[in-house]
Amino acid sequence: MHVFETKIRLQHTDGAGVVFFARYFQLAHLAYEDLLDAIGQSFPADLATCPVLYPIVHAESDYRAMLRLGDDLRIEVLVAAVKSRSFTLTYRFVNPAGDEAAVLQTVHVAVDKATGRSTQLPEELAAALRGL
Amino acid sequence: MHVFETKIRLQHTDGAGVVFFARYFQLAHLAYEDLLDAIGQSFPADLATCPVLYPIVHAESDYRAMLRLGDDLRIEVLVAAVKSRSFTLTYRFVNPAGDEAAVLQTVHVAVDKATGRSTQLPEELAAALRGL
Amino acid sequence: MHVFETKIRLQHTDGAGVVFFARYFQLAHLAYEDLLDAIGQSFPADLATCPVLYPIVHAESDYRAMLRLGDDLRIEVLVAAVKSRSFTLTYRFVNPAGDEAAVLQTVHVAVDKATGRSTQLPEELAAALRGL
Amino acid sequence: MHVFETKIRLQHTDGAGVVFFARYFQLAHLAYEDLLDAIGQSFPADLATCPVLYPIVHAESDYRAMLRLGDDLRIEVLVAAVKSRSFTLTYRFVNPAGDEAAVLQTVHVAVDKATGRSTQLPEELAAALRGL
Repeated sequence: MHVFETKIRLQHTDGAGVVFFARYFQLAHLAYEDLLDAIGQSFPADLATCPVLYPIVHAESDYRAMLRLGDDLRIEVLVAAVKSRSFTLTYRFVNPAGDEAAVLQTVHVAVDKATGRSTQLPEELAAALRGL
Repeated sequence: MHVFETKIRLQHTDGAGVVFFARYFQLAHLAYEDLLDAIGQSFPADLATCPVLYPIVHAESDYRAMLRLGDDLRIEVLVAAVKSRSFTLTYRFVNPAGDEAAVLQTVHVAVDKATGRSTQLPEELAAALRGL
Repeated sequence: MHVFETKIRLQHTDGAGVVFFARYFQLAHLAYEDLLDAIGQSFPADLATCPVLYPIVHAESDYRAMLRLGDDLRIEVLVAAVKSRSFTLTYRFVNPAGDEAAVLQTVHVAVDKATGRSTQLPEELAAALRGL
Repeated sequence: MHVFETKIRLQHTDGAGVVFFARYFQLAHLAYEDLLDAIGQSFPADLATCPVLYPIVHAESDYRAMLRLGDDLRIEVLVAAVKSRSFTLTYRFVNPAGDEAAVLQTVHVAVDKATGRSTQLPEELAAALRGL
């Protein structure tokens, strides 16, 4: 499990006074990139130089409690699956009261940039994800 | 079916040169609000005055083809279900080649603002959605 | 003058019930890209293939009236200056009451991607901007 | 001076491979809210209960160097002015090389929510800002 902590700010909220649903996905991606840093698999500064990318082919979110301005948000990222050509992450959003505010999932497929086709997950990334 | 057309702009793209996955949900919500306008059920300017809101309790997206800068995007919104306390919309994103770039879904539950609990979908909204 | 019309949606607003200040710049950039389309100078789908880019070196906004959910927003874009290596645009945001909600400005400098240095504005773009 | 540190992530970048100009303002606002927390003047969770708000009436940014994916960004916030009814903040964005990537400014005016008119800056906030 990888834990990422952040705070709900004005730009995350909408006119209904709570976090706009699409921004949960943005917050989850911050946690994902933080996880990649932690396992030594950071994105390069220039993605054009990456031979293999891991685009998201499926994303979903179940919303269970509102998140409000100023809330300390804890995101627990779990590696749900590592397959030969893909991996799946789940994100548990925990609000300051300790309640589950949302559960998200992203499914990533390894794509060879040269061909645009799915390819094997690099062994190093697969091992690092399995090690979490 | 309700059709919403827009264009992919620089702010939708990310460093990988394609639309960032979370922004598909933002684009879908533009189509949803456009649909509400079309059926005479627009959000009021001040959501605080709304006795019933329809927050999203589930959202998901399957990504099938990249969307790129300058693409004309056609979003076809379908009312997948209208129940006593909830409704479900699906969004088919069609790229300029006529291919399905993504399919999204949002599930909305009617919530009484005074109590914070789920409530009956207002009859007028339910009828308008069923009429689409 | 180039006119771009759009509508204020939930994702533009924040917990204070009005459009978040940074999003005025996003809305202005939509108007800028729409202007580029109108004068036949659209961004290419892949910016990596662009020999010359026009990054913004200065941006500013004066906020005069709130914009609210559902407002029809009219953005009037004016070419304030076209110089040998730069151009300046101003954006007048007009709310449904006809009042000036904000006035923005962006200053763009032509940059040669190969060298990273400022360069001459392409003659075609300069002429198209002057013709507006 | 108040220092806020963050990291440039995929969602901050655009198809040109650098941080989209409007997102500098979003990053600056994160630093501003972090400063408010540090001086004990945090926004309340529900802005509707705030008798006085400090909307931004002017914002500007000078862009001097690109910010790229993965960059550690240091934002130095300075209180440039505290007047009877307004205050001005400047934000110096420093990239990993120690260079000034951008300098931003926001001007905030105290507004009485009941009347919608400008009002005195609360003494506690004015003192806290002057004390930085």
